Amino acid sequence: MIVIMQSGASEGQIAHAIERIEQLGLKAHVSRGEFRTILGAIGEKRPAHQQILEALDGVERVVPIMMPFKLASREFCAEDTVVEVAGAAFGGPAVAVVAGPCAVEDADMFARIARAVTRGGAVMLRGGAFKPRTSPYDFQGLGEEGLKIMRSAADELGVPIVSEVLAAADVERVGRYVDMFQIGARNMQNYQLLREVGETGRPVLLKRGYAATIREFLMSAEYVLSRGNRRVVLCERGIKTFETETRFTLDVSAVPVVKRLSHLPIIVDPSHAAGSRGYVSALALAGVAAGADGIIVEVHDRPAEARCDGPQALLPEAFEEMMSRIRAIAGVLGRDVAGPQARRRS
Amino acid sequence: MIVIMQSGASEGQIAHAIERIEQLGLKAHVSRGEFRTILGAIGEKRPAHQQILEALDGVERVVPIMMPFKLASREFCAEDTVVEVAGAAFGGPAVAVVAGPCAVEDADMFARIARAVTRGGAVMLRGGAFKPRTSPYDFQGLGEEGLKIMRSAADELGVPIVSEVLAAADVERVGRYVDMFQIGARNMQNYQLLREVGETGRPVLLKRGYAATIREFLMSAEYVLSRGNRRVVLCERGIKTFETETRFTLDVSAVPVVKRLSHLPIIVDPSHAAGSRGYVSALALAGVAAGADGIIVEVHDRPAEARCDGPQALLPEAFEEMMSRIRAIAGVLGRDVAGPQARRRS
Amino acid sequence: MIVIMQSGASEGQIAHAIERIEQLGLKAHVSRGEFRTILGAIGEKRPAHQQILEALDGVERVVPIMMPFKLASREFCAEDTVVEVAGAAFGGPAVAVVAGPCAVEDADMFARIARAVTRGGAVMLRGGAFKPRTSPYDFQGLGEEGLKIMRSAADELGVPIVSEVLAAADVERVGRYVDMFQIGARNMQNYQLLREVGETGRPVLLKRGYAATIREFLMSAEYVLSRGNRRVVLCERGIKTFETETRFTLDVSAVPVVKRLSHLPIIVDPSHAAGSRGYVSALALAGVAAGADGIIVEVHDRPAEARCDGPQALLPEAFEEMMSRIRAIAGVLGRDVAGPQARRRS
Amino acid sequence: MIVIMQSGASEGQIAHAIERIEQLGLKAHVSRGEFRTILGAIGEKRPAHQQILEALDGVERVVPIMMPFKLASREFCAEDTVVEVAGAAFGGPAVAVVAGPCAVEDADMFARIARAVTRGGAVMLRGGAFKPRTSPYDFQGLGEEGLKIMRSAADELGVPIVSEVLAAADVERVGRYVDMFQIGARNMQNYQLLREVGETGRPVLLKRGYAATIREFLMSAEYVLSRGNRRVVLCERGIKTFETETRFTLDVSAVPVVKRLSHLPIIVDPSHAAGSRGYVSALALAGVAAGADGIIVEVHDRPAEARCDGPQALLPEAFEEMMSRIRAIAGVLGRDVAGPQARRRS
Repeated sequence: MIVIMQSGASEGQIAHAIERIEQLGLKAHVSRGEFRTILGAIGEKRPAHQQILEALDGVERVVPIMMPFKLASREFCAEDTVVEVAGAAFGGPAVAVVAGPCAVEDADMFARIARAVTRGGAVMLRGGAFKPRTSPYDFQGLGEEGLKIMRSAADELGVPIVSEVLAAADVERVGRYVDMFQIGARNMQNYQLLREVGETGRPVLLKRGYAATIREFLMSAEYVLSRGNRRVVLCERGIKTFETETRFTLDVSAVPVVKRLSHLPIIVDPSHAAGSRGYVSALALAGVAAGADGIIVEVHDRPAEARCDGPQALLPEAFEEMMSRIRAIAGVLGRDVAGPQARRRS
Repeated sequence: MIVIMQSGASEGQIAHAIERIEQLGLKAHVSRGEFRTILGAIGEKRPAHQQILEALDGVERVVPIMMPFKLASREFCAEDTVVEVAGAAFGGPAVAVVAGPCAVEDADMFARIARAVTRGGAVMLRGGAFKPRTSPYDFQGLGEEGLKIMRSAADELGVPIVSEVLAAADVERVGRYVDMFQIGARNMQNYQLLREVGETGRPVLLKRGYAATIREFLMSAEYVLSRGNRRVVLCERGIKTFETETRFTLDVSAVPVVKRLSHLPIIVDPSHAAGSRGYVSALALAGVAAGADGIIVEVHDRPAEARCDGPQALLPEAFEEMMSRIRAIAGVLGRDVAGPQARRRS
Repeated sequence: MIVIMQSGASEGQIAHAIERIEQLGLKAHVSRGEFRTILGAIGEKRPAHQQILEALDGVERVVPIMMPFKLASREFCAEDTVVEVAGAAFGGPAVAVVAGPCAVEDADMFARIARAVTRGGAVMLRGGAFKPRTSPYDFQGLGEEGLKIMRSAADELGVPIVSEVLAAADVERVGRYVDMFQIGARNMQNYQLLREVGETGRPVLLKRGYAATIREFLMSAEYVLSRGNRRVVLCERGIKTFETETRFTLDVSAVPVVKRLSHLPIIVDPSHAAGSRGYVSALALAGVAAGADGIIVEVHDRPAEARCDGPQALLPEAFEEMMSRIRAIAGVLGRDVAGPQARRRS
Repeated sequence: MIVIMQSGASEGQIAHAIERIEQLGLKAHVSRGEFRTILGAIGEKRPAHQQILEALDGVERVVPIMMPFKLASREFCAEDTVVEVAGAAFGGPAVAVVAGPCAVEDADMFARIARAVTRGGAVMLRGGAFKPRTSPYDFQGLGEEGLKIMRSAADELGVPIVSEVLAAADVERVGRYVDMFQIGARNMQNYQLLREVGETGRPVLLKRGYAATIREFLMSAEYVLSRGNRRVVLCERGIKTFETETRFTLDVSAVPVVKRLSHLPIIVDPSHAAGSRGYVSALALAGVAAGADGIIVEVHDRPAEARCDGPQALLPEAFEEMMSRIRAIAGVLGRDVAGPQARRRS
């Protein structure tokens, strides 16, 4: 860290700051400029040290040098991490596509859509059973019943499933059914939940909070990693901006930025970013062109009857068309798209 | 709701939209303009209807007319709600001040600060026992031990306490100690938690999420209210903006806006908004001048040793000075400031 | 427009609102719901009408139905507009690439970079002569001298040039040299300037303001179009968000959104969005994959000596590599990339 | 500045960075940590140096230590600047209130409102003659005719006037009528205009851009100051946030932040921030309570007929009521409110 003293800081304040730096187990390095004294605090270990030093009299601000995360950082692990989930792989040479409806509505509907998207090239199924809804009066998902429906359809097709878990207390129960836990955008900083899925060792799809910076996103991944679970896949799903034509703004730059700062795989969710099916395919292609390791997309064959997020669901035909373009763009970047081979649950 | 058809929408699409409106139990009202057809959907009940209609072919967008919340709305209850918490009252003629350290560090420290702030005029004590921290390597609070420390100090002083509960599964345990549950900004949309504190009937201090609009804020209050718990106090604590000199931007306008849209009391947290003690008093006064029903503020007598948020903690003397100005400004608005009389836990 | 009356609006207020709607030359259409009365105001012409009606007693809010722009809208002109600039074309089947340094520093440097980028496939040269700089103490550009340098290099290579004009009073002078006026992001709402370049009939490259919505962006285009100048090319160059790893956040969704709302061509500027050369190529490819009609990119052969924006300038070799990938991705979408044929100034 | 090298930076890259620092006339100070080398660059002079160093190979990022502005800084001038404008004073012990309609519509209307607000306590009149409007089809102001109307009413009442100037080319003409130039939010970074009003030596009311940080705001003030004109009054008028119930979000924290960073006076514009008259008074009081040196507010006696911003205009009676509360709150802070004495144009 670098501690910038106020321009009028007294000698006593400077001495006290140096003493405090050393009490934290760091080495102080003093540099006196024309207007200000700057203290280097070498050997930093904990983000909290920044606040401790900022609270001192005479300190103007403290600039951290190290990234606040460690296990998630590219410095910690130079090589790309590949996360395998029952046959599907994220972060390797192939682009992986996950698809399915927003919410599981009933067994027929899920089976129908599951068949359509696996035929089209999806290597994993998505679907919501526990739905976080802004209004207490809206459909909150089928709960465990929805997970059973997903599991059964997935087993028949030989593909893995991912579904959201909303609270630490639900992890055990949801874990009985899913191959991969999804942590939703609203829960990106639900630290109990992050620790709990960290303990399971099971793959985690971590969505970026819609007001989170990439650093905060990687700090949340660090919570999972710090429990010994290295199987984290990041997901950029759009951030809140002033633009209202789209539901969120897909931050496609997050893809190369994450690739530089971290070794973890990153996929893109064009459906929640767009909020409207007319834009989904363009955003999916942009994500792949920017280097994403995969796409997670909502598909519904009867969107006007969907109980949730109908406006943003792709029709199966549009999904297939998008897939053929994703394959071609992946090819331009020297990648391919993971194929829909039969798989077994690991 | 108002359903705006695309300018090229076909007669068949219009007819289908009308049919769908009626299936939802609403009355359709057709208005054909020069360029577009507009459908009024009268009798709206559920926020989800908007998405259902937006998913139809030929529909451009759907504009809701009613506020998405009901029990929280001023229309539902014209009179101001007063929330009483063991002697302290929010929303009545008096401005209520809640104060204490960011985190409970040990019994001595809490008792010392508790005495100072009640002497200065605080009618409730605050303190964190379960701390949500961005980094897994930072101090996470004393947990239940911290709550015991708070309870004991509060009982001695005869004032109530508020502390954050982080998950639905913790509500029962935290409820054994606190007079009022705090739902933190990061949990404003943790719907399981909102429902759970709703079930208790106990007072809830609900903080606004830092990227939430006031409507979303009131929707979260609706979750608590819809479980039959009317004892909700809202708290504006700063929203995220591009400004970096302050940690967040206190949205002081939220005070008169909430007063217009809702009957619930609203208080202001200048400490988390400012992030720096030099700005806390100015923001507290601004909040009271704008009509806030109270202030919640962090105080620490040794901020340079604080384990959390030291830079934003007021010293006890600064707290007292601020209190005397709050009293004077409350007086200008025809209010007073609730005094530090002895109280018992209800 | 739709005028939503307050739930307690009196009959007199409703009658007055109807009268006022008719005074504005609109037809009023009344719809009485359970809780509120809604007035349709049919035949809307001017954005200002919204404010006039919102100022009336008893009116809660006014919802516009029509887009606030007309000449820029897809409804006004269903077919894509192609803007030709001295041989380069934006909006047709080919993707057009514009390249050059941030600022013109001297004749040698500009000629060197101009040769490199046209060899690499750029069909137009960019370069700043009048630079808007946040600090009054920074390099403000060579001014007219810079334009002369650009003109001369361009004439030699037979390609057109684009450069920023900062004020209405400079339009005539800058117009002596450039083939296309650039309106910078900070001037997107400089209405005098927009009107002035509108009067010239010359092609205009209009950059999106970094806090502007797409609707506001198209309203600014409307200013130019309303003066009879249809030769407007839009440029998405990144919007301000909370993310700080990139200078701005490229809103790649703006590409398909503009394509739906408007007939005007849209290109993408990955350099200013990224702020760092390591991300430029990924963003350029994302833009083309999303359907952009072109790319404008900064290139410098000695970025460490650049007087402006060195960190984001691509090296010529990286530019060539990016171009070969742009060609391949354009191919996937059934487009090609305009070639570097010799051209003359029209 | 502090230059943070990448963790894998080579010795050659470090040596080159040191050399480049010295070429810029700065002194390099090397500090080698466990993972990275940090270079202090002492004696920084120009914001542009940051970009030059960031463009070097092996450099991760550059952290500036000094504020980018100088003449505007509290370090440059410890004492509060008081700006006198023909009898009105900003920044001294008294709170100054400026009031008037959004736009000048005709002579009668302006005279009527001018009399009402000066009677109520305004010490300066505001009014728009050149209006920047989002739509080319909206009322653009009366132009020079509007300024004549303002001048004449002001002379009769003996108070000064402030009105917006939109372009550098208009400064001379507008300067014939006004006592103080207003630079609008959209022009906060119109550097030609800032320089031009700087040259006049006339008082300038500089509004904060709605997406600008306080540092950028002070950099814009620096443009005026750097031309030798020290008579700058800053105005916080609301920033863009996700909140839509208010037109902008008044950043009341900007008041104490500016007071700490700068010696310039700062006033608050509650009208544009609120966008709705029901919130104006609460925001004005909040601004004064936070320490603002004044308020600028829109007043209209027939808001339903206003050609611009009718919904946010206070009625004269509401203005008077607000004034009496402003006086009381100013009193709490040990200030008074400048009275409406007769004045002459200086």
